[in-house]
Amino acid sequence: MKSILLIGQSNMAGRGFIEDVSSIYNEHINMLRNGRWQMMAEPLNFDRHISGIGPAASFAQAWTEDHPGESIGVIPCAEGGSSIDEWAIDGLLTRHAISEATFAMETSELVGILWHQGESDSHGERYKTYEDKLLSLFKHFREELNTPDLPIMIGELGHYLGEVGFGKSAVEYKQINQVLSKVAHTEKNCCFVTSKGLTANPDGIHMDSISQRKFGLRYYEAFSKQKHVVDSLDIENEWIEKASKRELTKNERIFVESTKFALGQLNFEEFSIHISTINESK
Amino acid sequence: MKSILLIGQSNMAGRGFIEDVSSIYNEHINMLRNGRWQMMAEPLNFDRHISGIGPAASFAQAWTEDHPGESIGVIPCAEGGSSIDEWAIDGLLTRHAISEATFAMETSELVGILWHQGESDSHGERYKTYEDKLLSLFKHFREELNTPDLPIMIGELGHYLGEVGFGKSAVEYKQINQVLSKVAHTEKNCCFVTSKGLTANPDGIHMDSISQRKFGLRYYEAFSKQKHVVDSLDIENEWIEKASKRELTKNERIFVESTKFALGQLNFEEFSIHISTINESK
Repeated sequence: MKSILLIGQSNMAGRGFIEDVSSIYNEHINMLRNGRWQMMAEPLNFDRHISGIGPAASFAQAWTEDHPGESIGVIPCAEGGSSIDEWAIDGLLTRHAISEATFAMETSELVGILWHQGESDSHGERYKTYEDKLLSLFKHFREELNTPDLPIMIGELGHYLGEVGFGKSAVEYKQINQVLSKVAHTEKNCCFVTSKGLTANPDGIHMDSISQRKFGLRYYEAFSKQKHVVDSLDIENEWIEKASKRELTKNERIFVESTKFALGQLNFEEFSIHISTINESK
Repeated sequence: MKSILLIGQSNMAGRGFIEDVSSIYNEHINMLRNGRWQMMAEPLNFDRHISGIGPAASFAQAWTEDHPGESIGVIPCAEGGSSIDEWAIDGLLTRHAISEATFAMETSELVGILWHQGESDSHGERYKTYEDKLLSLFKHFREELNTPDLPIMIGELGHYLGEVGFGKSAVEYKQINQVLSKVAHTEKNCCFVTSKGLTANPDGIHMDSISQRKFGLRYYEAFSKQKHVVDSLDIENEWIEKASKRELTKNERIFVESTKFALGQLNFEEFSIHISTINESK
């Protein structure tokens, strides 16, 4: 199995409202839990109880479409509100993410990192020292994980920043975006992922669910083609529409019914009947 | 800060329905996320997307009542469906839990383990080898964490097992309970915690929310008095009633409002007004 490490702050973890998009259930997408793999369900990067939709699910879904029968795992290590200084190479977040990735690598091949961070550094001229810190971090991950050429996808901060709500304080997000773009264009095996056209929750800082689905597709475009994605993709709306109509496999349907039962939305008899029906179906 | 390690299977993680009990918000209770501490919110042991109420929150709440002004952290490492063999000393779950506890111990003093496991071993005469495996596991945790005398609270499996739903297959839960009791009574610094009178979700295997609140109180009684708890506590119902009426601190009220805002239940203006009102209150 291949795996992908998610690091950064809240927009990598995901804060899109769960109820705003169709759920992605896919028996070929896993998430790391207690060092092992479980079938993915969102919120998958549960750094906070308010975690929601991030870019990883649509990224992984798009990956499975290109790799029929194969599986992918996501390693959720993004941490809400974290600054680049909190991602220092000797900091807890970095050491913990390396630990999680190392557990994951016992049973998977790490093939990339998705990075999205910078809102917490979009003020007070922090952009001036951001590049060195980011390069040092990426170098450290590649060294510690023994993956010297590991591809790193670098997502741009939302263009909606600096305006309203919690996003208002991110007055220097354009400068951070310049650094992110520079690093993506100059550092080996790094690709830039634009946030052009993506929109925010009412808080003005967290990307909304639909935007996160699109962002994940762009991350995957960058990853799969190993190229910079500097514009929105033509397929985004169509893909989201199509994904919402994807027919679930038997295992996925059982997963959905088991979820309902575990949450008390079905009684045992109803649940048993539903499972029998699924098992007897083609 | 003191900390407590949660290990075992789903009833330690928690599967009680969230909506069935009053939420516990307490700025002196933390949970480990990405190697660091965050203010606790349930579900706190997010091994599955269906995770719910477990014993840890009422345990920690009771702890804070006895330690005014001090803080406690919980380290969630319980894994749904795990058997004692999956908690082998060289297994992923064990190594991961030790890793998480080690991160936590950088910033806290580990003062105990809460253990609840055995449903997955309540069939096929697995009880015959359970004792040795459990003793070996406890010894390993104490050694690896350099806490040779670490107290371990051992919760009994629910008396409702073996009857209905998913619990029906746990036909040998009484034998496992005998082993759990024996280990608790013979191994140093181990205490037994009865599940007498506690009830299940409709699945017949997962303890319901109210029962988990009571169970947490029993775990705390065992921990704080270093004694076996072999009967229900007189204070259980009264405590739950009182906890639901506990007045929140300013920080806790801000946490609640921030949660609502993050989930899209308040707009930014409403949120700002609520926060101002809280800040201006006594």
